[in-house]
Amino acid sequence: MTRIAIDAMGGDHAPREIVKGAVWAALDYNVPIELVGKEDAIKAELDNIARYGIRSNRGGYFRQNIKVDLSKLDIKITHAEEIIEMGEAPGQAIRKKRKSSIVLAVDAVAKGSSDAVVAAGSTGAAMASSLFGLGRLPGIERPAIAVMLPAMKKPFLLLDAGANSSCTPEMLYQFAVMGTTFVKNVYGRKEAKVGVLNIGEEAGKGNELVQNTYKMLEENQNGLNFIGNIEGKEMFQGSCDVIICDGFVGNVALKIIEGSSSMLFKMIQQEFNTDIISKIIGLLAKPFMKRIYKRINYEEFGGALLLGIKGITVIAHGRSTAYAIRNAVRVAKEAVESDVNKKIMEIYQ
Amino acid sequence: MTRIAIDAMGGDHAPREIVKGAVWAALDYNVPIELVGKEDAIKAELDNIARYGIRSNRGGYFRQNIKVDLSKLDIKITHAEEIIEMGEAPGQAIRKKRKSSIVLAVDAVAKGSSDAVVAAGSTGAAMASSLFGLGRLPGIERPAIAVMLPAMKKPFLLLDAGANSSCTPEMLYQFAVMGTTFVKNVYGRKEAKVGVLNIGEEAGKGNELVQNTYKMLEENQNGLNFIGNIEGKEMFQGSCDVIICDGFVGNVALKIIEGSSSMLFKMIQQEFNTDIISKIIGLLAKPFMKRIYKRINYEEFGGALLLGIKGITVIAHGRSTAYAIRNAVRVAKEAVESDVNKKIMEIYQ
Repeated sequence: MTRIAIDAMGGDHAPREIVKGAVWAALDYNVPIELVGKEDAIKAELDNIARYGIRSNRGGYFRQNIKVDLSKLDIKITHAEEIIEMGEAPGQAIRKKRKSSIVLAVDAVAKGSSDAVVAAGSTGAAMASSLFGLGRLPGIERPAIAVMLPAMKKPFLLLDAGANSSCTPEMLYQFAVMGTTFVKNVYGRKEAKVGVLNIGEEAGKGNELVQNTYKMLEENQNGLNFIGNIEGKEMFQGSCDVIICDGFVGNVALKIIEGSSSMLFKMIQQEFNTDIISKIIGLLAKPFMKRIYKRINYEEFGGALLLGIKGITVIAHGRSTAYAIRNAVRVAKEAVESDVNKKIMEIYQ
Repeated sequence: MTRIAIDAMGGDHAPREIVKGAVWAALDYNVPIELVGKEDAIKAELDNIARYGIRSNRGGYFRQNIKVDLSKLDIKITHAEEIIEMGEAPGQAIRKKRKSSIVLAVDAVAKGSSDAVVAAGSTGAAMASSLFGLGRLPGIERPAIAVMLPAMKKPFLLLDAGANSSCTPEMLYQFAVMGTTFVKNVYGRKEAKVGVLNIGEEAGKGNELVQNTYKMLEENQNGLNFIGNIEGKEMFQGSCDVIICDGFVGNVALKIIEGSSSMLFKMIQQEFNTDIISKIIGLLAKPFMKRIYKRINYEEFGGALLLGIKGITVIAHGRSTAYAIRNAVRVAKEAVESDVNKKIMEIYQ
């Protein structure tokens, strides 16, 4: 059965929210867990959960209070002495801290005691340790960070969301292949449409990278459902399943989506807080706002997938609460069980 | 007195909304106008306005009904036989259609009958005709599209929002200089802070372009208040006055902001439309939503400025209604009257 290794020490709310999320996932998805981190700290959190259950804000709004019988769950602890902090240079840190929670979580997959990693700490460290510890899939030039983003009709996959600041058309082409394989197998999008994120719809638009990527996709459609360029405005209509771009553009895009939505929600809060009448209407409107928040909240999607490595690594948001970790574990489990990597390798062999 | 030439035939709602917006601006800002386009069509619109006044949706929400006495306004018409359509290749189109409304509107500035151009049609055609008809400011490598965007504290200027798909660090440095000069003189931001749009805050982050731009800004701070890199999430807090990036990233960013906000508003409408109770609460909440919409609505900011040409060209949104055009004319007037170009030239001489 698929076991998920979780870096219990990574993220703004580690280890508390990470451990809660791990237990929550074990409960909801019946999945064995390997918690990697300081044994004492993890045990203390588990004791807490055994006594008080899981208390958590779901998406910042939905309060949960779940009773847990830990004896019925398959949760093991692997002790890790060190922690890689957010500011550290990833490459250096993973070489220096061989006993850190993220390195040992990846090791657990390399050794076969777990099948996938979930990590909410430094994205760079998760990437570096996965690349170093698991290696790339044969034929894949560079792994990409793939993230599901909300849109009107249905969520879409954006990649690369930040693994590679500079890309070649060949890399973007591979992102299209990996992204398509992922959404086909994990989200059942059989006719997955692929678009190139661009500043206009016509073929000649954009910089050299996207122009050449367009040509390459047009000439080698094998298995891909390439529908052309897609603009930043149109992508939220949900007409594409996979949108590819270089990691610089993708990361800027991801953070802008997060930043502008968060600004809008803050403005809504401000407007509903000007006087007593506005507060009352705000209270009435709150359930609706919650529902919208839920529709766009990154916590629902659980985390980004590092596609292209020999293994499954799910990178959860640094701010992840238990609910986000629970969903990240689900994504990891689905990715393992749908055999995404084997299917990507079949294309490249 | 500053006269503004307006391409009356450009934009999704031309000539009706353009002419209405022009008259509205003449009325509100006491500014002489030169409407460039098909004389018959423009006259018909003016007749309409003389008879019924200006009826317009302000920001899609605020209904206006303004009576107008055209005899008190200084509005002249310059006939233009041709129109450049949205799909046409800009360079070719402006050479072929020498009698098009956008080319003649720029000519009006070149000849001195007007002081600035406002255009809501093809951005490429507005840019090409401005470059061709007015030329670059001495010392400036490439003009940039500069656009004011909403943020929590105060709006900020993003450039380049789409003029140059590929940039050099030198170009981005000049964007910083031009942007700073603009916000200092038009928005009174004396200590204008400049940030480089990047995927992390540390100096070594991002691709080669932003890394080298960072170095260049650090080494040549003369007159600039460079505060380092800024991420897509943080920019909406409003801590920067000027954010620079290449035109590909800027255009993607601009369209994503538009797309994601519009998605959120659509989701809000959907949620407030599920049953009779939700509709009632939706009605109560509507005034608040209107206020937020107004805070982030691009129409309030009027349009993007083409910085770096010998003249002032304001590029309004293709979907511009009268209200957006009115505000675009205000931006053009303020840019002319604050002598932005002279001040940029002083730096480069």
